[in-house]
Amino acid sequence: MRMYDIIAKKRDGKKLDNKDIAFFINGYIKEQIPDYQASAFLMAAFLNGLDDDETVHLTKVMASSGDMADLRELGTVADKHSTGGVADTTTLIVVPLVCACGLKVAKMSGRGLGHTGGTLDKLESIPGMSVSLEMNAFMSQVKRIGGAVIGQTMNMCPADKMLYALRDVTATVESIPLIASSIMSKKLASGSNIIMLDVKTGSGAFMTDPDNAQKLANTMVRIGNMAGRKTAAIISDMSQPLGLAVGNSLEVIEAIDVLSGRIQGDLLTVSLSLASRMLCLANIAKNDEDANAMLLEALHSKRALHKFGEIITAQGGNTNVIHDTSLMPHARIISTLHAKSEGILTATDCKRIGEAAGMLGAGRLKKDDIIDPAVGFIIKKRIGDTVKYGDELFEVHANDENKIEEAMKYLEKCITLTNSAKSPTLIYGLVSSCG
Amino acid sequence: MRMYDIIAKKRDGKKLDNKDIAFFINGYIKEQIPDYQASAFLMAAFLNGLDDDETVHLTKVMASSGDMADLRELGTVADKHSTGGVADTTTLIVVPLVCACGLKVAKMSGRGLGHTGGTLDKLESIPGMSVSLEMNAFMSQVKRIGGAVIGQTMNMCPADKMLYALRDVTATVESIPLIASSIMSKKLASGSNIIMLDVKTGSGAFMTDPDNAQKLANTMVRIGNMAGRKTAAIISDMSQPLGLAVGNSLEVIEAIDVLSGRIQGDLLTVSLSLASRMLCLANIAKNDEDANAMLLEALHSKRALHKFGEIITAQGGNTNVIHDTSLMPHARIISTLHAKSEGILTATDCKRIGEAAGMLGAGRLKKDDIIDPAVGFIIKKRIGDTVKYGDELFEVHANDENKIEEAMKYLEKCITLTNSAKSPTLIYGLVSSCG
Repeated sequence: MRMYDIIAKKRDGKKLDNKDIAFFINGYIKEQIPDYQASAFLMAAFLNGLDDDETVHLTKVMASSGDMADLRELGTVADKHSTGGVADTTTLIVVPLVCACGLKVAKMSGRGLGHTGGTLDKLESIPGMSVSLEMNAFMSQVKRIGGAVIGQTMNMCPADKMLYALRDVTATVESIPLIASSIMSKKLASGSNIIMLDVKTGSGAFMTDPDNAQKLANTMVRIGNMAGRKTAAIISDMSQPLGLAVGNSLEVIEAIDVLSGRIQGDLLTVSLSLASRMLCLANIAKNDEDANAMLLEALHSKRALHKFGEIITAQGGNTNVIHDTSLMPHARIISTLHAKSEGILTATDCKRIGEAAGMLGAGRLKKDDIIDPAVGFIIKKRIGDTVKYGDELFEVHANDENKIEEAMKYLEKCITLTNSAKSPTLIYGLVSSCG
Repeated sequence: MRMYDIIAKKRDGKKLDNKDIAFFINGYIKEQIPDYQASAFLMAAFLNGLDDDETVHLTKVMASSGDMADLRELGTVADKHSTGGVADTTTLIVVPLVCACGLKVAKMSGRGLGHTGGTLDKLESIPGMSVSLEMNAFMSQVKRIGGAVIGQTMNMCPADKMLYALRDVTATVESIPLIASSIMSKKLASGSNIIMLDVKTGSGAFMTDPDNAQKLANTMVRIGNMAGRKTAAIISDMSQPLGLAVGNSLEVIEAIDVLSGRIQGDLLTVSLSLASRMLCLANIAKNDEDANAMLLEALHSKRALHKFGEIITAQGGNTNVIHDTSLMPHARIISTLHAKSEGILTATDCKRIGEAAGMLGAGRLKKDDIIDPAVGFIIKKRIGDTVKYGDELFEVHANDENKIEEAMKYLEKCITLTNSAKSPTLIYGLVSSCG
């Protein structure tokens, strides 16, 4: 078998068999196949596509290229993944909610990069909280209290890491089968038997177009189910930040506010939608109606909030934050951006809003950048809101005066005011075999 | 400007401008652009194509990536190129023929590789003959006697050499615009203002399919003309060896036989077709009829044969070979392959016939293999001929008894006998703006 022939096969639009894909991935991680052959293959796959069989097999081979978590002793256990966005704090709400309803969650999360935030960075803004648990501690925490959120171990899916780095410099990232296999390989390696996906669409999402988001969701759900995991997805809006808080500590505070019942809105709606589907996949709820009743009970009784507290305690954090958010890190300077014109908020450049948070120090441009947990901003107007001259648009939290002005200038250009506006659809669709 | 964006542009089927192409080629030869980006680009270009403007510009930039021969002081001067085949000795016939009619030829040739022979190897089988002339000596020889055939200088088209090596291992060779730009960049760098192309098709050709050969011919002629060179092409058959002799010395002997008027056949027919077109492009002949009359006079008067002698002398060779071919190298062993069945010769595997010559030592598998000028074989039956049991099929010339048997076994499998046969079309078409 030669890599040359595998490249030629995909170039000519023929179907790769399992041996071809295994030969490629195994050879590539051993550095027996050079980057220039891998990138020619990736471009051929980008342009000629990969069908479901090929994509599932690619995903499985990538998943087994490194460590695979063996969670069988936990029984039914769920994972949840968002394709990334701004003010997307659903994990911090969904995990305690479903745990409070009896579903175990063993979640492996990522860090923020570029304009999107990362769950691990948010959790680490809680004083004392650790996300670096050994596998045994992770398992026993899930067994004991029902949930844990940690970072992926270093040697999980090395093939995906290598291929993603190559795709990133060869213009082969935006391919649905390649994106789907990259995400799902990590989910398969993470070991959960229930996988709930949240595919974002809009100006702040990786998939700006809803049709492509739908396709990606379909592909990932098919991969998951073909690989023997119960998988479902929602397609949800990221044309504006999902919550009102952008920044690590600010988003944790918002999650606590949601779990405490103090605020509702889109963040809660999407969280309930994800949680409801997860309870259905786990056969804990018979249907959405049943699931919603269970979830609202967990919310209103504060059982979900206390579950979040249990998880914080288990991972070394100061659990008092759930009752007193002033214990969370706060920025030194709070400054408000006021409207200099009038109209109805028609559109936001959600990606730029994420980038503005990065400018303040809330995110990373490069992997080894150090983030400031306290900085970020609170959004005061959402799409469809009327804006009058002088109205508050953003409340900016910063620790560096020089950065405030830069971020504010950037934020000003992120919103469009016109005479009319249509509120975006919040949840575009659902891909699931659950009733 | 970033290579990433140029890859993405071609990936998305957009048209590259001249700056994009120059950035790619210039960056690649300076090793500022890595192989893995170049190969992703090549696959995108392979699958999405390059239009005429892109191909012409790519060709020009590759041509100017190294030394360019400046032949302006020679006035009108022609070059001739074949896409390669077996027993394709046309250069040794065409160059003296057109020189004898007053057209200067400054030909830079290649060596044989794989199953195809190379003009330089053939010429070097003439005792004493050199193909390594300095540029000044090359120019003055063309000025003095009208023709010279040498090897390309080392630093001509380095971009093409690098890209070809990469295409060869990334399954991106068989692209018409990439093949056309590779061939034509060398022709542009070689400096002639008339370019005559012979695009081969059939089992022994790079382009097995006549339609693709026609497309390649069209593309190369357009590139040549757009780059300001008078360019024409014929598409000719390579479903069987063109001449009857395969092997370096044997092919030189056959060329001398043709120029001496002792043999006719397909080799002469294709040579006259190429030569005729060259005289038209140079305005030495008004039309094909006129050109043919001039060429036949040069042939019958032996002026073409003596011109070949002049070229041999000028390049240090023993010119007596044109009168006495026994002065050429001869193999120690001559053995005949006889037919073991009967029928009409329907098809030959022309590529395998070339490979059989390679087994005897007539060709190279790797660039640094040493060839034996004397070995090869004489073909006794052509497609359409009736073969009776015991008829001579091949006369094998060898210097190593062990290799004879191996080559004979291989040759036996190269021919197909059935009940009927159709002689192949010899010349499929002509691409030219000449009347």
